[in-house]
Amino acid sequence: MTKSRTGNSKFLKAYNEAGILDLIRMKQPVSRAELSKKTGLSPTAIGVIVLSLLEKGYIHETGTGESKGGRKPVMLELKPDSYYSVGLDIDVDSIQFVLTDITGRLVHEGSVPLAVNTADSAVKASESCINDIMDRFSINRERMLGIGISVPGMVDSISHRVVLAPNLGWEDEDPAGMLRERLQLPVYMENEAMSSAICENWIGACQKASNFVCVNIKSGIGAGIFTGGMPYRGTSGSAGEVGHIVVDENGPRCGCGNYGCLETMASTGRVVEKARKMVRQGVVSSLNDLENVDAMSLENIAAAARAGDGAAMNLLDETARYLGIALSNLVNTLNPSRIVLGKDFTVYGDLVMGTLRSVIDGKALKRPATNVELLISEKGDRASTLGAAIIPLKKLFGR
Amino acid sequence: MTKSRTGNSKFLKAYNEAGILDLIRMKQPVSRAELSKKTGLSPTAIGVIVLSLLEKGYIHETGTGESKGGRKPVMLELKPDSYYSVGLDIDVDSIQFVLTDITGRLVHEGSVPLAVNTADSAVKASESCINDIMDRFSINRERMLGIGISVPGMVDSISHRVVLAPNLGWEDEDPAGMLRERLQLPVYMENEAMSSAICENWIGACQKASNFVCVNIKSGIGAGIFTGGMPYRGTSGSAGEVGHIVVDENGPRCGCGNYGCLETMASTGRVVEKARKMVRQGVVSSLNDLENVDAMSLENIAAAARAGDGAAMNLLDETARYLGIALSNLVNTLNPSRIVLGKDFTVYGDLVMGTLRSVIDGKALKRPATNVELLISEKGDRASTLGAAIIPLKKLFGR
Repeated sequence: MTKSRTGNSKFLKAYNEAGILDLIRMKQPVSRAELSKKTGLSPTAIGVIVLSLLEKGYIHETGTGESKGGRKPVMLELKPDSYYSVGLDIDVDSIQFVLTDITGRLVHEGSVPLAVNTADSAVKASESCINDIMDRFSINRERMLGIGISVPGMVDSISHRVVLAPNLGWEDEDPAGMLRERLQLPVYMENEAMSSAICENWIGACQKASNFVCVNIKSGIGAGIFTGGMPYRGTSGSAGEVGHIVVDENGPRCGCGNYGCLETMASTGRVVEKARKMVRQGVVSSLNDLENVDAMSLENIAAAARAGDGAAMNLLDETARYLGIALSNLVNTLNPSRIVLGKDFTVYGDLVMGTLRSVIDGKALKRPATNVELLISEKGDRASTLGAAIIPLKKLFGR
Repeated sequence: MTKSRTGNSKFLKAYNEAGILDLIRMKQPVSRAELSKKTGLSPTAIGVIVLSLLEKGYIHETGTGESKGGRKPVMLELKPDSYYSVGLDIDVDSIQFVLTDITGRLVHEGSVPLAVNTADSAVKASESCINDIMDRFSINRERMLGIGISVPGMVDSISHRVVLAPNLGWEDEDPAGMLRERLQLPVYMENEAMSSAICENWIGACQKASNFVCVNIKSGIGAGIFTGGMPYRGTSGSAGEVGHIVVDENGPRCGCGNYGCLETMASTGRVVEKARKMVRQGVVSSLNDLENVDAMSLENIAAAARAGDGAAMNLLDETARYLGIALSNLVNTLNPSRIVLGKDFTVYGDLVMGTLRSVIDGKALKRPATNVELLISEKGDRASTLGAAIIPLKKLFGR
């Protein structure tokens, strides 16, 4: 229902500014005339809004476009390095961070160790990290759009409190609120897998996908789901807990109380544990040559498999089969157009993609299986950190 | 972005009429003043739209409401029996039908047998059924909003063609198009479980739920999913195929090629088959007293369990446990606020609700399990038929 005559013009102006800014982002480079044509707003109205966006420095004029007769139009674009956003990804023993500009471009990245993993210590480390970045790049408070934080846990999407993050040992904590208080900047909190999904949707493989799932594999396994082009978080913010789909009824007991959950069969920790056991049992494998079996990493296993080690390859293939069982359920239930696999899966994904594909083709129904593309995240380990940084950008663009 | 000044006033008028009609539906009885207040449209604009809706006969004036000082306002309501819609549910051997009026009230219902189950014979039976109804209730073409058809299969939500309905043996059929041609009325096609979900959302248990799932149990098992208050059909219209979640790796082979799919363990046909086997194996049960074991029905089994037959009760409990395993996956993945179980589950649901609840509480994660209500559909066997009839109504209300 149109409300344009209710007179709330300040709201409408902000609404229109965000909308036009978002249109410029999507169509850039774009002329004022095109903006007028696409929105139905008058050239005068567009002129006023564009002027305001130019004055605020969100956009700049960049050369001239093709003319269809008459004067060549001036083109508009987002202005790189005008405004910034910081994304933080809090994990068990470290915080990964990125600095991006208004265009979503990665400006700087790094990580800081976390000695003690309490919400309090994470907040302190985050604060000093953000202050360092702002100093180093001479970014003043006015040009910092905000901070997004990604955590491996359930987040309340209204209050931005962490409801439960089992791997961090957090329950009902409010690091976003604490950081907001200290920095006096907007701070948002998001689930890690959903942060990855936001990243893929904004600057990654799912910019044109309406219904897709990002599955992150690390110490836990979780999914970020988009339906109808929007983040789907469920009724109490815990949608996407695919790590607890049972993939082997005879598997080991999971922290959730069930047996053989995907997380207990295919998490990174579990794969490494199985490789160590393999070595100790004397299975023929190049992994036996490692100096310290206890320090064996997923990277070691992937490298061995890549060099032709059959035992290492079998282990990764088995992991992909468990993953395939869970993803088949997801494919049947959600019929997504894409599933993007991220985090530690990017270490060995190329080795097992054929296995994963064939399990899904064999187990899911033909129509949804045919219609789903399986992809390894091109953002590597940093998708959720980038996604966290995108949250303040999305607010600016009214998304 | 507001488009109110683009001058497409005919579009805007229709848009506003549908919007106001929908508001009247939700707030009825409601006065013109309240409509003006809720929409921000001027009293004059509301007056024009309401007059048009009165003239078309969608609404009527009904008594006077409470005054807050001054003249008592005239109240507006949808006008019962002004316009109608027919819903059809095509199953293997019969077509169920309902006639509803603009308010969603059930006016008439029944079923016709289907001797041969081809799309062609279903269309012929549907046509004569609809003509009979229109004759019997003296409904002319102008007062018939349209026809909705529900089928147990995948439907293309754009073309309304049936992509695949394994139980009917249909592949790429267009009964909606054929019926549209014959009747010269709008005809819509929808998946059966989604039709049930539309029914629960419009007039049933999920009118206020944004994220919910309706699970229908019959010869097959399927789910209709709503996310963010909207039907979620997935990328190629096959979301909700929960019948193929594997619930027993050692179960029998399913038509889909897997072993132990929910459908093979908990469909109505499977439960009856297991009961017959039980009787033949001489298990102590009142079901042994049935005259004809081959004619045993789900109703017989439920009646026996209700009368205290332990063997029958165990069988239904086992069915609920399989269902619980699949629903736990759904709860973890979608975090819905409600799951409504329908069709044949309404025959025995009250007997096994405790078992189902405890399996989900035991297997799903605590937070989503705590936040989901499990309900038996109060619409009994007719939810999908009513849902089909609601589709043409939704179009009228701009939904």
